[in-house]
Amino acid sequence: MPKYDLQDILNLEKYHRISLINKISGLKSANLIGTKNTNGISNVAIFNSVIHIGANPPLLGFIIRPLAVERHTYSNIKANKYFTINQVSKEIHKMAHMTSANYSKEISEFNPCGLTEMYIDDFPIPFVKESKIKIGLSFQEEVLIEANKTILMIGKVEKIILPDDCISTDGDINFEALNTIGVGGLDTYYECKRIARYEYARANHPIKEIE
Amino acid sequence: MPKYDLQDILNLEKYHRISLINKISGLKSANLIGTKNTNGISNVAIFNSVIHIGANPPLLGFIIRPLAVERHTYSNIKANKYFTINQVSKEIHKMAHMTSANYSKEISEFNPCGLTEMYIDDFPIPFVKESKIKIGLSFQEEVLIEANKTILMIGKVEKIILPDDCISTDGDINFEALNTIGVGGLDTYYECKRIARYEYARANHPIKEIE
Repeated sequence: MPKYDLQDILNLEKYHRISLINKISGLKSANLIGTKNTNGISNVAIFNSVIHIGANPPLLGFIIRPLAVERHTYSNIKANKYFTINQVSKEIHKMAHMTSANYSKEISEFNPCGLTEMYIDDFPIPFVKESKIKIGLSFQEEVLIEANKTILMIGKVEKIILPDDCISTDGDINFEALNTIGVGGLDTYYECKRIARYEYARANHPIKEIE
Repeated sequence: MPKYDLQDILNLEKYHRISLINKISGLKSANLIGTKNTNGISNVAIFNSVIHIGANPPLLGFIIRPLAVERHTYSNIKANKYFTINQVSKEIHKMAHMTSANYSKEISEFNPCGLTEMYIDDFPIPFVKESKIKIGLSFQEEVLIEANKTILMIGKVEKIILPDDCISTDGDINFEALNTIGVGGLDTYYECKRIARYEYARANHPIKEIE
């Protein structure tokens, strides 16, 4: 049974360590973050770190790597104050993976990656047309993590657009019906199959399934 | 096509809003966080917010809700400086869900939820024996999110234990083989099936699959 202590982890070859530590905490969400720079050029990039920060007000966050090199997603959000989060489904997972390539800031990733910009109402940043769940956010807060100078970026949800048939009357979203995928680290994609939904757990009571 | 603006979201019934916003960003990881209080009583609780903060040093983080009520996981980590993160697989997902019930701080959740404490080497906090991936961490940093007073807790990975047959020579972890699950919000569990693993994307080159 493989066992790694801290020194073993630090001794691993760099890309081996990156893969192991990125994957060790399990399946992650895959989302495309859309932004725009001050010259009006859009940017779209895949992120696996979007997390729920709170429901009232509705807040989502994600991690930006250290600003040792220019991070277009970060600088665009700081400049324009709005961004979009667009869910990756099985149908577009290869295009989504492609956005992680290193494109010049002079061009948008949308077209070379086979994705389509879509504007909705008066929201100033494009959504990804091919994404089934589209979220528009306003920049809320950035938090520096001292340990390694990564940044937690937080946005307030201003707009949600999703298909008719994937959401129940009490707010459950059916990921299997949407072909929502999960991702292992930075490179491995998984489709999902629903096991069950359960009621809120109560001590000393058996768990009840919600049909 | 359902469309929600901020005011529509704020007008939703509370649990409807919680479900929608917890699920809108896609599949999340499911992990059991193990801690111990100063009286030696262990605690184990399910979290869906564990994220990768960095690989060198190896750092993971997760979100603690506001400290308006006592959060045992938080106070135990602050008191003892160590905690464990243990992956949830299909086999134990109901037991993991059960840990979200409200147990007295005088008793450990391990036994009533059907989970087993396991000590490894000299690590001071118990791992979950039934979890296939076990991670031991030292407390590194906490970051307050001003917008809603949630806290990002960050730990440094000190120890990883995982099964022999799930990890490739370059650090890829096979979640399908481990029956790793993903979770939708707080209540819906999904099993996963591997689609593919891809090489690092390069602009203007087709994506190559890693066999």
